[in-house]
Amino acid sequence: MAYIGTAVEYALHCLLWLVEPLSTPASSGDLAELQGVPAAFLAKILPKLERARIVTAAEGARGGYRLERPPAGITVLDVVEAIEGRKPLFDCQEIRGRCALFRDGAPRWATSGICSIHAVMVRAEEVLRAELARTTLADLARTVGRKAPAGFAGDVRAWLGERAALRASRGARRDEEWAGSGVGRAPAPRRKVR
Amino acid sequence: MAYIGTAVEYALHCLLWLVEPLSTPASSGDLAELQGVPAAFLAKILPKLERARIVTAAEGARGGYRLERPPAGITVLDVVEAIEGRKPLFDCQEIRGRCALFRDGAPRWATSGICSIHAVMVRAEEVLRAELARTTLADLARTVGRKAPAGFAGDVRAWLGERAALRASRGARRDEEWAGSGVGRAPAPRRKVR
Repeated sequence: MAYIGTAVEYALHCLLWLVEPLSTPASSGDLAELQGVPAAFLAKILPKLERARIVTAAEGARGGYRLERPPAGITVLDVVEAIEGRKPLFDCQEIRGRCALFRDGAPRWATSGICSIHAVMVRAEEVLRAELARTTLADLARTVGRKAPAGFAGDVRAWLGERAALRASRGARRDEEWAGSGVGRAPAPRRKVR
Repeated sequence: MAYIGTAVEYALHCLLWLVEPLSTPASSGDLAELQGVPAAFLAKILPKLERARIVTAAEGARGGYRLERPPAGITVLDVVEAIEGRKPLFDCQEIRGRCALFRDGAPRWATSGICSIHAVMVRAEEVLRAELARTTLADLARTVGRKAPAGFAGDVRAWLGERAALRASRGARRDEEWAGSGVGRAPAPRRKVR
Protein backbone atom coordinates (compact mmCIF):
# COMPACT_ATOMS: atom_id res chain seq x y z
CA MET A 1 0.00 0.00 0.00
CA ALA A 2 1.26 3.46 -0.86
CA TYR A 3 2.19 5.82 1.99
CA ILE A 4 -0.42 8.35 0.83
CA GLY A 5 -3.58 6.36 0.07
CA THR A 6 -6.57 6.55 -2.26
CA ALA A 7 -8.68 8.27 0.45
CA VAL A 8 -6.37 11.31 0.16
CA GLU A 9 -6.81 11.33 -3.63
CA TYR A 10 -10.62 11.21 -3.27
CA ALA A 11 -10.55 13.93 -0.59
CA LEU A 12 -8.44 16.30 -2.68
CA HIS A 13 -10.58 15.80 -5.79
CA CYS A 14 -13.74 16.51 -3.74
CA LEU A 15 -12.25 19.60 -2.17
CA LEU A 16 -11.36 21.02 -5.59
CA TRP A 17 -15.10 21.20 -6.39
CA LEU A 18 -15.69 23.19 -3.20
CA VAL A 19 -13.03 25.87 -3.87
CA GLU A 20 -15.52 28.19 -5.60
CA PRO A 21 -18.43 28.57 -3.15
CA LEU A 22 -21.59 26.78 -4.38
CA SER A 23 -25.06 28.33 -3.95
CA THR A 24 -26.08 25.18 -2.02
CA PRO A 25 -23.51 22.96 -0.29
CA ALA A 26 -22.65 19.65 -2.00
CA SER A 27 -23.71 16.39 -0.38
CA SER A 28 -21.33 13.50 0.05
CA GLY A 29 -23.51 11.37 -2.27
CA ASP A 30 -23.52 14.00 -5.03
CA LEU A 31 -19.74 14.49 -4.76
CA ALA A 32 -19.29 10.70 -5.03
CA GLU A 33 -21.54 10.42 -8.09
CA LEU A 34 -19.93 13.46 -9.76
CA GLN A 35 -16.52 11.82 -9.54
CA GLY A 36 -17.46 8.17 -10.02
CA VAL A 37 -16.07 7.11 -6.63
CA PRO A 38 -17.77 4.77 -4.09
CA ALA A 39 -20.32 6.75 -2.01
CA ALA A 40 -19.81 4.62 1.12
CA PHE A 41 -16.03 5.25 1.03
CA LEU A 42 -16.46 9.00 0.54
CA ALA A 43 -18.99 9.10 3.40
CA LYS A 44 -16.16 8.02 5.71
CA ILE A 45 -13.65 10.49 4.28
CA LEU A 46 -15.61 13.76 4.51
CA PRO A 47 -16.19 13.57 8.31
CA LYS A 48 -12.39 13.36 8.72
CA LEU A 49 -12.06 16.62 6.76
CA GLU A 50 -14.78 18.09 8.99
CA ARG A 51 -12.93 17.08 12.16
CA ALA A 52 -9.81 18.79 10.77
CA ARG A 53 -11.87 21.95 10.13
CA ILE A 54 -11.19 21.77 6.39
CA VAL A 55 -14.89 21.47 5.56
CA THR A 56 -18.02 22.33 7.47
CA ALA A 57 -21.26 20.36 7.18
CA ALA A 58 -24.60 22.16 6.95
CA GLU A 59 -27.65 20.28 8.12
CA GLY A 60 -31.03 19.66 6.48
CA ALA A 61 -32.29 18.78 3.00
CA ARG A 62 -30.32 21.77 1.65
CA GLY A 63 -27.30 20.71 3.64
CA GLY A 64 -23.94 19.41 2.55
CA TYR A 65 -20.30 20.37 2.64
CA ARG A 66 -18.50 23.68 2.15
CA LEU A 67 -14.88 24.62 2.79
CA GLU A 68 -14.49 25.92 6.32
CA ARG A 69 -11.39 27.97 5.54
CA PRO A 70 -10.17 29.94 2.48
CA PRO A 71 -8.59 27.49 -0.03
CA ALA A 72 -5.31 29.43 0.00
CA GLY A 73 -4.98 28.43 3.66
CA ILE A 74 -5.56 24.68 3.17
CA THR A 75 -2.45 22.77 2.11
CA VAL A 76 -2.09 19.29 0.62
CA LEU A 77 -0.31 18.37 3.88
CA ASP A 78 -3.39 19.46 5.87
CA VAL A 79 -5.53 17.09 3.80
CA VAL A 80 -3.03 14.20 3.99
CA GLU A 81 -2.87 14.53 7.79
CA ALA A 82 -6.64 14.95 8.16
CA ILE A 83 -7.11 11.61 6.38
CA GLU A 84 -4.04 9.57 7.30
CA GLY A 85 -3.19 11.12 10.67
CA ARG A 86 0.43 11.92 11.48
CA LYS A 87 1.78 8.64 10.04
CA PRO A 88 5.54 8.25 10.53
CA LEU A 89 7.66 7.58 7.45
CA PHE A 90 9.81 5.22 9.52
CA ASP A 91 9.10 3.45 12.79
CA CYS A 92 12.46 3.15 14.61
CA GLN A 93 12.79 -0.10 16.60
CA GLU A 94 15.82 1.23 18.53
CA ILE A 95 17.90 -1.84 17.74
CA ARG A 96 21.08 0.09 18.61
CA GLY A 97 20.50 -0.83 22.27
CA ARG A 98 20.37 -4.58 21.65
CA CYS A 99 24.07 -5.14 20.77
CA ALA A 100 25.37 -8.51 22.02
CA LEU A 101 28.36 -6.73 23.57
CA PHE A 102 26.09 -4.87 26.02
CA ARG A 103 25.81 -7.81 28.40
CA ASP A 104 24.68 -5.69 31.38
CA GLY A 105 22.20 -3.58 29.40
CA ALA A 106 22.88 -0.81 26.89
CA PRO A 107 25.22 1.94 28.15
CA ARG A 108 23.98 5.51 28.15
CA TRP A 109 26.13 6.62 25.18
CA ALA A 110 24.51 3.93 23.00
CA THR A 111 20.91 5.02 23.46
CA SER A 112 21.10 8.74 24.27
CA GLY A 113 19.78 11.18 21.69
CA ILE A 114 18.17 10.09 18.46
CA CYS A 115 19.56 7.05 16.58
CA SER A 116 21.65 8.32 13.62
CA ILE A 117 19.65 6.20 11.17
CA HIS A 118 16.36 7.45 12.62
CA ALA A 119 17.68 11.03 12.30
CA VAL A 120 18.13 10.59 8.52
CA MET A 121 14.53 9.34 8.25
CA VAL A 122 13.22 12.24 10.35
CA ARG A 123 14.99 14.74 8.04
CA ALA A 124 13.48 12.95 5.02
CA GLU A 125 10.02 13.15 6.60
CA GLU A 126 10.52 16.87 7.26
CA VAL A 127 11.35 17.68 3.61
CA LEU A 128 8.42 15.53 2.48
CA ARG A 129 6.00 17.38 4.77
CA ALA A 130 7.43 20.77 3.75
CA GLU A 131 6.92 19.93 0.06
CA LEU A 132 3.31 18.82 0.68
CA ALA A 133 2.72 22.04 2.64
CA ARG A 134 3.92 24.17 -0.31
CA THR A 135 0.81 23.53 -2.41
CA THR A 136 -2.61 24.82 -1.34
CA LEU A 137 -6.07 23.93 -2.59
CA ALA A 138 -6.15 27.34 -4.29
CA ASP A 139 -2.93 26.49 -6.21
CA LEU A 140 -4.35 23.10 -7.25
CA ALA A 141 -7.65 24.66 -8.37
CA ARG A 142 -5.79 27.18 -10.54
CA THR A 143 -3.76 24.41 -12.22
CA VAL A 144 -6.86 22.27 -12.84
CA GLY A 145 -8.82 25.33 -14.00
CA ARG A 146 -6.20 26.14 -16.66
CA LYS A 147 -6.63 22.67 -18.22
CA ALA A 148 -10.44 22.63 -18.44
CA PRO A 149 -12.35 24.47 -21.21
CA ALA A 150 -14.06 27.76 -20.30
CA GLY A 151 -17.54 26.41 -19.57
CA PHE A 152 -16.61 23.27 -17.66
CA ALA A 153 -16.53 24.64 -14.09
CA GLY A 154 -19.95 26.23 -14.72
CA ASP A 155 -21.32 22.93 -16.03
CA VAL A 156 -20.18 21.14 -12.86
CA ARG A 157 -21.70 23.85 -10.66
CA ALA A 158 -24.96 23.57 -12.57
CA TRP A 159 -24.93 19.76 -12.18
CA LEU A 160 -24.34 20.07 -8.40
CA GLY A 161 -27.02 22.83 -8.21
CA GLU A 162 -29.60 20.57 -9.90
CA ARG A 163 -28.82 17.78 -7.47
CA ALA A 164 -29.11 20.13 -4.49
CA ALA A 165 -32.46 21.46 -5.79
CA LEU A 166 -33.72 17.88 -6.22
CA ARG A 167 -32.73 17.06 -2.64
CA ALA A 168 -34.44 20.21 -1.36
CA SER A 169 -37.70 19.53 -3.25
CA ARG A 170 -37.77 15.92 -1.99
CA GLY A 171 -37.29 17.22 1.56
CA ALA A 172 -40.10 19.80 1.16
CA ARG A 173 -42.48 17.16 -0.28
CA ARG A 174 -41.77 14.86 2.67
CA ASP A 175 -42.56 17.71 5.12
CA GLU A 176 -45.88 18.44 3.29
CA GLU A 177 -46.87 14.77 3.37
CA TRP A 178 -46.31 14.66 7.11
CA ALA A 179 -48.20 17.93 7.66
CA GLY A 180 -51.20 16.64 5.59
CA SER A 181 -51.38 13.19 7.15
CA GLY A 182 -53.60 14.46 10.02
CA VAL A 183 -52.04 12.06 12.50
CA GLY A 184 -50.15 14.79 14.30
CA ARG A 185 -46.85 13.08 13.56
CA ALA A 186 -43.94 15.46 13.84
CA PRO A 187 -41.48 15.64 10.96
CA ALA A 188 -38.43 13.48 11.45
CA PRO A 189 -35.53 15.45 12.94
CA ARG A 190 -33.37 16.96 10.23
CA ARG A 191 -30.17 15.08 9.83
CA LYS A 192 -26.93 16.14 8.26
CA VAL A 193 -26.90 15.27 4.57
CA ARG A 194 -23.70 13.30 4.07
CA MET B 1 2.94 0.02 8.45
CA ALA B 2 5.54 2.71 7.97
CA TYR B 3 6.64 3.56 4.42
CA ILE B 4 10.24 2.62 5.24
CA GLY B 5 10.09 -0.66 7.15
CA THR B 6 12.05 -2.46 9.85
CA ALA B 7 14.00 -4.43 7.22
CA VAL B 8 15.66 -1.18 6.12
CA GLU B 9 16.59 -0.40 9.73
CA TYR B 10 18.15 -3.87 10.17
CA ALA B 11 19.96 -3.57 6.83
CA LEU B 12 21.47 -0.17 7.66
CA HIS B 13 22.61 -1.28 11.12
CA CYS B 14 24.27 -4.38 9.60
CA LEU B 15 26.00 -2.36 6.92
CA LEU B 16 27.48 0.01 9.50
CA TRP B 17 29.46 -2.93 10.91
CA LEU B 18 30.87 -3.64 7.45
CA VAL B 19 32.12 -0.10 6.75
CA GLU B 20 35.59 -0.83 8.16
CA PRO B 21 36.80 -3.97 6.29
CA LEU B 22 36.89 -7.03 8.59
CA SER B 23 39.74 -9.57 8.40
CA THR B 24 37.10 -12.29 7.75
CA PRO B 25 33.67 -11.44 6.29
CA ALA B 26 30.74 -11.46 8.74
CA SER B 27 28.07 -14.14 8.40
CA SER B 28 24.38 -13.30 8.42
CA GLY B 29 23.96 -15.33 11.65
CA ASP B 30 26.77 -13.47 13.43
CA LEU B 31 25.44 -10.08 12.31
CA ALA B 32 21.99 -11.06 13.61
CA GLU B 33 23.35 -12.19 16.99
CA LEU B 34 25.57 -9.11 17.32
CA GLN B 35 22.56 -6.85 16.96
CA GLY B 36 19.88 -8.93 18.69
CA VAL B 37 17.69 -9.18 15.57
CA PRO B 38 15.94 -12.34 14.25
CA ALA B 39 18.42 -14.41 12.20
CA ALA B 40 15.74 -15.75 9.83
CA PHE B 41 14.60 -12.20 9.00
CA LEU B 42 18.15 -10.97 8.41
CA ALA B 43 18.85 -14.00 6.19
CA LYS B 44 16.19 -12.67 3.80
CA ILE B 45 17.47 -9.09 3.91
CA LEU B 46 21.17 -9.60 3.10
CA PRO B 47 20.55 -11.33 -0.28
CA LYS B 48 18.57 -8.25 -1.34
CA LEU B 49 21.62 -6.10 -0.56
CA GLU B 50 23.72 -8.57 -2.54
CA ARG B 51 21.41 -8.32 -5.58
CA ALA B 52 21.71 -4.52 -5.40
CA ARG B 53 25.54 -4.90 -5.35
CA ILE B 54 25.77 -3.22 -1.95
CA VAL B 55 27.37 -6.30 -0.36
CA THR B 56 29.17 -9.27 -1.81
CA ALA B 57 28.97 -12.78 -0.30
CA ALA B 58 32.11 -14.92 0.01
CA GLU B 59 31.63 -18.68 0.09
CA GLY B 60 32.91 -21.34 2.47
CA ALA B 61 33.39 -21.70 6.21
CA ARG B 62 35.38 -18.43 6.17
CA GLY B 63 32.69 -16.82 4.05
CA GLY B 64 30.24 -14.06 4.83
CA TYR B 65 29.40 -10.55 3.74
CA ARG B 66 31.55 -7.55 2.85
CA LEU B 67 30.62 -4.23 1.28
CA GLU B 68 30.91 -4.47 -2.49
CA ARG B 69 31.44 -0.73 -2.99
CA PRO B 70 33.15 2.02 -0.98
CA PRO B 71 30.79 3.22 1.81
CA ALA B 72 30.97 6.82 0.56
CA GLY B 73 29.27 5.58 -2.62
CA ILE B 74 26.35 3.79 -0.91
CA THR B 75 23.48 6.08 0.08
CA VAL B 76 20.57 5.49 2.44
CA LEU B 77 18.34 5.69 -0.66
CA ASP B 78 20.31 2.82 -2.27
CA VAL B 79 19.62 0.68 0.80
CA VAL B 80 15.92 1.66 1.01
CA GLU B 81 15.41 0.78 -2.65
CA ALA B 82 17.42 -2.45 -2.41
CA ILE B 83 15.07 -3.61 0.36
CA GLU B 84 11.73 -2.02 -0.47
CA GLY B 85 12.04 -1.69 -4.25
CA ARG B 86 10.94 1.53 -5.95
CA LYS B 87 7.75 1.86 -3.88
CA PRO B 88 5.59 4.84 -4.94
CA LEU B 89 4.63 7.34 -2.26
CA PHE B 90 1.19 7.66 -3.88
CA ASP B 91 -0.63 5.37 -6.27
CA CYS B 92 -2.77 7.63 -8.50
CA GLN B 93 -6.14 6.05 -9.44
CA GLU B 94 -6.73 8.63 -12.21
CA ILE B 95 -10.19 9.46 -10.94
CA ARG B 96 -10.14 12.74 -12.92
CA GLY B 97 -11.37 10.77 -15.96
CA ARG B 98 -14.46 9.38 -14.20
CA CYS B 99 -16.46 12.65 -13.90
CA ALA B 100 -20.23 12.09 -14.30
CA LEU B 101 -20.34 14.92 -16.86
CA PHE B 102 -18.15 12.93 -19.28
CA ARG B 103 -21.04 10.82 -20.55
CA ASP B 104 -19.26 9.74 -23.74
CA GLY B 105 -15.90 9.02 -22.09
CA ALA B 106 -13.33 11.45 -20.71
CA PRO B 107 -12.24 14.17 -23.18
CA ARG B 108 -8.58 14.47 -24.05
CA TRP B 109 -8.01 17.66 -22.00
CA ALA B 110 -9.20 15.88 -18.83
CA THR B 111 -6.71 13.03 -18.93
CA SER B 112 -3.71 14.40 -20.85
CA GLY B 113 -0.50 14.98 -18.92
CA ILE B 114 -0.09 14.12 -15.27
CA CYS B 115 -2.98 14.73 -12.85
CA SER B 116 -2.27 17.94 -10.88
CA ILE B 117 -2.73 16.12 -7.57
CA HIS B 118 -0.43 13.30 -8.67
CA ALA B 119 2.14 15.94 -9.72
CA VAL B 120 2.29 17.31 -6.15
CA MET B 121 2.88 13.78 -4.84
CA VAL B 122 5.61 13.12 -7.43
CA ARG B 123 7.42 16.32 -6.37
CA ALA B 124 7.13 15.24 -2.72
CA GLU B 125 8.57 11.83 -3.60
CA GLU B 126 11.46 13.49 -5.44
CA VAL B 127 12.46 15.64 -2.45
CA LEU B 128 12.16 12.61 -0.17
CA ARG B 129 14.43 10.52 -2.41
CA ALA B 130 16.91 13.40 -2.76
CA GLU B 131 17.13 13.75 1.03
CA LEU B 132 17.69 9.99 1.50
CA ALA B 133 20.39 10.12 -1.20
CA ARG B 134 22.26 12.90 0.67
CA THR B 135 23.51 10.57 3.43
CA THR B 136 25.98 7.79 2.70
CA LEU B 137 27.03 4.81 4.80
CA ALA B 138 30.36 6.59 5.36
CA ASP B 139 28.49 9.63 6.78
CA LEU B 140 26.41 7.40 9.07
CA ALA B 141 29.46 5.48 10.28
CA ARG B 142 31.24 8.76 11.17
CA THR B 143 28.21 9.95 13.19
CA VAL B 144 27.88 6.62 15.01
CA GLY B 145 31.65 6.45 15.55
CA ARG B 146 31.66 9.85 17.28
CA LYS B 147 29.14 8.61 19.87
CA ALA B 148 30.88 5.35 20.81
CA PRO B 149 33.86 5.24 23.22
CA ALA B 150 37.32 4.76 21.69
CA GLY B 151 37.60 0.99 22.07
CA PHE B 152 34.08 -0.02 21.07
CA ALA B 153 34.57 -0.50 17.31
CA GLY B 154 37.62 -2.65 18.06
CA ASP B 155 35.62 -4.75 20.56
CA VAL B 156 32.95 -5.40 17.94
CA ARG B 157 35.59 -6.33 15.34
CA ALA B 158 37.18 -8.71 17.85
CA TRP B 159 33.77 -10.28 18.61
CA LEU B 160 33.06 -10.80 14.89
CA GLY B 161 36.62 -12.12 14.39
CA GLU B 162 36.17 -14.72 17.16
CA ARG B 163 32.91 -15.88 15.58
CA ALA B 164 34.53 -16.13 12.15
CA ALA B 165 37.45 -18.14 13.61
CA LEU B 166 34.97 -20.49 15.33
CA ARG B 167 33.13 -21.05 12.05
CA ALA B 168 36.42 -21.69 10.24
CA SER B 169 37.64 -24.22 12.84
CA ARG B 170 34.29 -26.06 12.76
CA GLY B 171 34.53 -26.22 8.95
CA ALA B 172 38.12 -27.56 9.10
CA ARG B 173 37.14 -30.21 11.70
CA ARG B 174 34.27 -31.37 9.49
CA ASP B 175 36.65 -31.70 6.50
CA GLU B 176 39.12 -33.75 8.64
CA GLU B 177 36.37 -36.07 9.84
CA TRP B 178 35.33 -36.76 6.28
CA ALA B 179 38.95 -37.33 5.17
CA GLY B 180 39.53 -39.77 8.07
CA SER B 181 36.33 -41.75 7.64
CA GLY B 182 37.93 -44.02 5.02
CA VAL B 183 34.72 -44.41 3.06
CA GLY B 184 35.93 -42.21 0.23
CA ARG B 185 33.09 -39.78 0.78
CA ALA B 186 33.84 -36.37 -0.74
CA PRO B 187 33.34 -33.29 1.43
CA ALA B 188 29.95 -31.66 0.93
CA PRO B 189 30.12 -28.80 -1.59
CA ARG B 190 30.93 -25.53 0.12
CA ARG B 191 27.90 -23.36 0.47
CA LYS B 192 27.64 -19.65 1.02
CA VAL B 193 27.57 -18.84 4.71
CA ARG B 194 24.54 -16.64 5.15
